[in-house]
Amino acid sequence: MDIQAYMQQVGRQARLASRAMARADAGTKNAALLAIADAIVRDAATLIAANARDMEQARADGLEPALLDRLQLTDKTIATMAEGLRQIAALPDPVGEMGDFKFRPSGIQVGKMRVPLGVIGIIYEARPNVTADAAGLCIKSGNATILRGGREAFHCNQAIAALVKEGLATAGLPATAVQIIETPDRAAVGELITMTEFVDVIVPRGGKSLIARIAQDARVPVIKHLDGICHVYIDEEADPEKAIRIADNAKTQRYAPCNTMETLLVHSNVADLILPPLAAIYEQKGVELRGCAATRDILPEAIPATEEDWRTEYLAPILSIKLVDDLDAAIDHINTYGSHHTDAIITENYSKARRFLREVDSASVMVNASTRFADGFEYGLGAEIGISTDKIHARGPVGLEGLTSEKWVVLGNGEIRV
Amino acid sequence: MDIQAYMQQVGRQARLASRAMARADAGTKNAALLAIADAIVRDAATLIAANARDMEQARADGLEPALLDRLQLTDKTIATMAEGLRQIAALPDPVGEMGDFKFRPSGIQVGKMRVPLGVIGIIYEARPNVTADAAGLCIKSGNATILRGGREAFHCNQAIAALVKEGLATAGLPATAVQIIETPDRAAVGELITMTEFVDVIVPRGGKSLIARIAQDARVPVIKHLDGICHVYIDEEADPEKAIRIADNAKTQRYAPCNTMETLLVHSNVADLILPPLAAIYEQKGVELRGCAATRDILPEAIPATEEDWRTEYLAPILSIKLVDDLDAAIDHINTYGSHHTDAIITENYSKARRFLREVDSASVMVNASTRFADGFEYGLGAEIGISTDKIHARGPVGLEGLTSEKWVVLGNGEIRV
Repeated sequence: MDIQAYMQQVGRQARLASRAMARADAGTKNAALLAIADAIVRDAATLIAANARDMEQARADGLEPALLDRLQLTDKTIATMAEGLRQIAALPDPVGEMGDFKFRPSGIQVGKMRVPLGVIGIIYEARPNVTADAAGLCIKSGNATILRGGREAFHCNQAIAALVKEGLATAGLPATAVQIIETPDRAAVGELITMTEFVDVIVPRGGKSLIARIAQDARVPVIKHLDGICHVYIDEEADPEKAIRIADNAKTQRYAPCNTMETLLVHSNVADLILPPLAAIYEQKGVELRGCAATRDILPEAIPATEEDWRTEYLAPILSIKLVDDLDAAIDHINTYGSHHTDAIITENYSKARRFLREVDSASVMVNASTRFADGFEYGLGAEIGISTDKIHARGPVGLEGLTSEKWVVLGNGEIRV
Repeated sequence: MDIQAYMQQVGRQARLASRAMARADAGTKNAALLAIADAIVRDAATLIAANARDMEQARADGLEPALLDRLQLTDKTIATMAEGLRQIAALPDPVGEMGDFKFRPSGIQVGKMRVPLGVIGIIYEARPNVTADAAGLCIKSGNATILRGGREAFHCNQAIAALVKEGLATAGLPATAVQIIETPDRAAVGELITMTEFVDVIVPRGGKSLIARIAQDARVPVIKHLDGICHVYIDEEADPEKAIRIADNAKTQRYAPCNTMETLLVHSNVADLILPPLAAIYEQKGVELRGCAATRDILPEAIPATEEDWRTEYLAPILSIKLVDDLDAAIDHINTYGSHHTDAIITENYSKARRFLREVDSASVMVNASTRFADGFEYGLGAEIGISTDKIHARGPVGLEGLTSEKWVVLGNGEIRV
């Protein structure tokens, strides 16, 4: 198989399909989404059979239990996939929204229209549900998409993609609006991320090393999601009850997500009050504590934290704790060691809250709320294609709007430039 | 000189300065801009002397007259530079703007805040006025910037940069918020566009080959401006008077800008009416016409247009003309051969206007107005750092807002994720 020729063909078809998708009205796109949801429910047994082939191979290859777990399709995950597509259908269509029309001294009236990005390449790992989610978000936002799933989920992804194509065709949209790469050859990814003439943006979903590798080699712009080294800062003027509740939740509600707290900063004036009851909660839940010297004066059981701890995304029941003497030290620590993902202050002081929101350079900044809220569903985006740790285009959770951009619209009456 | 170590130092200083710039209030930033404007007027003689050294060298190197012209500083260009900075000071400050705060079922209130991108690298060619313009836009948008001007303007750029630093210091802002690279060594550019830890976005301003080269090698995101192959489509239902006036202006008002029309599309039913008087205007102004076969039936003096003509940005008194049989053919031609920059339809038909605006995939789409309006000043941005032909982040003219992005703000009252 000539991978380059194959990918050029996929790219050409995607570019062509993207035009029809950009023109499609909300009703047509929603009809496709609902048809796909129905087909997924109808063919659940087929999907589970395809998944069984993948699972068998994965077990033979000795895949880790956590990965096997992600790979497995069940009646429940299939129902969730279908429900996700129905939810996307229920969201407002961002494409074609217009606004901000202002008259200029020349007589022209200038505004903006929201438009699809064009062709979106999505590269992901084991989870087969991403195939349906990502296809759904791209269809609703009027984009064509090229999907590249993990090779572990090969058969199951192909089966889902067949239903997506069926749904698109049912609604009268080009089946090539969603293409899944039909070869497990890694060279296909190399082509996908460098075909600037056919692909407008790449969204990698997976571990940090996958994303870093793609970002390194891509010529197409990448919406990246690297680390989530998130902080909670408990200010001197925090409500202790809120502080303890949020610091507990931000760390222990789930350990693996990117918006879980990794470092707790506590104002030294309230550390005596806050840390002992909080440490008791962490101890009970089995969270290992690593502290600075001042922390260990209060919590002698904590392991000494090293410089490396402040830069580490544990994704595990481990928490580093540092005492700081004021808001400036907290902001400085976060901007220096954090990953610009999500950080929260707990305070009742208006001016400190305002400074924290303004000066912490992160995609999400919060006052008196758990970092675990940094999520497309919690923010009301309806669904998310990923969370961006980039600064241009979109920061934080990326929903339908992040898969679009705005073009300029000029309404005139024969005006010319003089 | 160890270029890599030097650039790392420049990058580190820029990152540090970017934090102070992000915090700076509008009054402080405006004070800096006005102080720089005053210093430029005060030291006009010094700038002209520095420029004279560059001009002498450039003449000795045999630089083309057009480039010498761009390089030269005069009392008038100096006054324009100062005036440009005062205009930027008068613009509203985009940084810290907040909005869209909505309550979510969890109890948190979620909105957005406009924030600087951080550190912006700007790479440009001969024009020394870009040094002041770009510095001004980056200061106002709360960014730190690293400037790399053309080596032809080396002395003059250094002299302007010294005044920028003076103005920043006067206002109490870090002088390192605007740094100009102090070596003409090309390796410095290679470092600048790959220092992802210190630089958030690169804006190249210059010819297509410069921009393509930078985009090819950059690891930092690039806001690019490649071709401007702009079209005017004169529909069957166009007002002939508006059509002729706009087609004249879009081509002949100036030949070199990117928003000048390169291809004219005319509905075949009105070509007999429109083309002869329009061709007479073009002939009088010395515009060479290249036409499709149908065009040449009406304008036998036109040179036959080749496939290559439809893909060419002439930047010269040359125009290609093609007859089309309907709106679909016009849109298809534009989306196929255009550069997604700026395209206009001339029509009195509401539905055709609406379809053109929606379906033409360009950064600026216009009805009954000259493509020459695609410009930051004409759109009311106050100033522009460049025009983007990219799709992500910002399309078309990029002003202060394009040098910022939005972060998420969550206001809570002790909420946790359940």
